[in-house]
Amino acid sequence: MLAKIHITLKKDVLDPQGSVIANSLKSLGFDNVNDVRQGKFIELEINSNSKEEAEKQCNDMCEKLLANLVIEDYSVEIEN
Amino acid sequence: MLAKIHITLKKDVLDPQGSVIANSLKSLGFDNVNDVRQGKFIELEINSNSKEEAEKQCNDMCEKLLANLVIEDYSVEIEN
Repeated sequence: MLAKIHITLKKDVLDPQGSVIANSLKSLGFDNVNDVRQGKFIELEINSNSKEEAEKQCNDMCEKLLANLVIEDYSVEIEN
Repeated sequence: MLAKIHITLKKDVLDPQGSVIANSLKSLGFDNVNDVRQGKFIELEINSNSKEEAEKQCNDMCEKLLANLVIEDYSVEIEN
């Protein structure tokens, strides 16, 4: 199965990388753009018998390694 | 409108960061995991009258700034 994991900064956490992107976009003429936030996107192949089991394992991975839960949120989608 | 942009390394491009994640996951006991690829996920607010116009602008942003088209692919989704 293919797992797609999004890791994003929590709403209240400052995102300097996002601000830099917003400024660069503005200087390129995209002045209708606001609130740019940059996160991580991780795709992985997981061998599992059920979607539920795969999702549980991916949540575990996020909590143990992939995300910093103090400042980041994560979401997991599983595709067959 | 909210634009969600995924930027991923092309299939044939080596992803050392993904390999490191795969190895770390294996050493944590997740040994049913393969093919880890890490990409970027960018969310932004865009003021636009139509979804089509917003999507066109986001494609433009990817081509001009956000993605390195030699080694990366991008995809854009627009939500109201």
